[in-house]
Amino acid sequence: MSRPSVHPFDVEVPQLREPDNRAVPERMKDVQGMPGTPAGLALRVFQSGFAAVAVAVMTATNDFPSVTAFRYLVAALSLQCLWSVSLAIVDLYALLVKRCLRNSKILGFFTIGDAITSTLTFAAACASAGITVLIHSDFNDCAQNHCARFETSTAMAFVSWFLVSPSFFLCFWSLASR
Amino acid sequence: MSRPSVHPFDVEVPQLREPDNRAVPERMKDVQGMPGTPAGLALRVFQSGFAAVAVAVMTATNDFPSVTAFRYLVAALSLQCLWSVSLAIVDLYALLVKRCLRNSKILGFFTIGDAITSTLTFAAACASAGITVLIHSDFNDCAQNHCARFETSTAMAFVSWFLVSPSFFLCFWSLASR
Repeated sequence: MSRPSVHPFDVEVPQLREPDNRAVPERMKDVQGMPGTPAGLALRVFQSGFAAVAVAVMTATNDFPSVTAFRYLVAALSLQCLWSVSLAIVDLYALLVKRCLRNSKILGFFTIGDAITSTLTFAAACASAGITVLIHSDFNDCAQNHCARFETSTAMAFVSWFLVSPSFFLCFWSLASR
Repeated sequence: MSRPSVHPFDVEVPQLREPDNRAVPERMKDVQGMPGTPAGLALRVFQSGFAAVAVAVMTATNDFPSVTAFRYLVAALSLQCLWSVSLAIVDLYALLVKRCLRNSKILGFFTIGDAITSTLTFAAACASAGITVLIHSDFNDCAQNHCARFETSTAMAFVSWFLVSPSFFLCFWSLASR
């Protein structure tokens, strides 16, 4: 007999392989804050919450449409709110059915979306901050303007941007480290 | 003889190994635009050039210090110019002595520096854009202000930010894909 006899304990465990027969590389562990994790869901909820507050506070002033930057802030933060709410729903679904959102197409889509919305949000927050400081410090004209509301809305926009950044970086990192 | 005879063509090529005996993972190829490449050096030179032009055009107006956002633009773009010039010198040195800048500490330092300077530059550009649009479109007050110069300076700041982004993303990507 040239064929060696197979002992049950000698059976080699087959290595996990991807469809194209490459060995599966070592994957990054599930870092909290990535899509499909509880912290990721929390980030999305807070992002959309702060964006909604920024829009609500800004639209509560009657004279915001006279300044282009404030109109832009309302538009950009509304988009941010919609995007974050959508991804919160996706995260919630992934958590409920215990599905992993570690597909490179999904991650690429989330990364690009986060990059665009966070850039728009940050631009809106900075433009509004520029105008707010101009009215408050340079013109000293808070008597005729709703300085407090403009400042609150700008601050909320910055907080919303600050909460989008970790989502973006974690998506980008896990996309790059695949 | 139980030892098999070694034929010259059967000699196994030893796999490259890192000092701690792990197999060297497949590294990203030298993508043009990364630190230590000719395109990376070109990016740095253009970044610093546009930042310098933005500062020069803004400081050529005599009334820029009356607006906080314009003072901030001068400060942020000066920092950007200094940072880009420093990295251009490092890139030039690396190219001349043919050294690879693919050390993870160096890449981490470049990534953090690029993230900070590009965020400051983008914030300055957005704040200035907000003020410029306010003066030009909302107040229609270009007769008393140097609208053209403010707009040119803001545009140069945006171009400078746009050129920092690829440097940052390539550094971050190669750091994450190590």
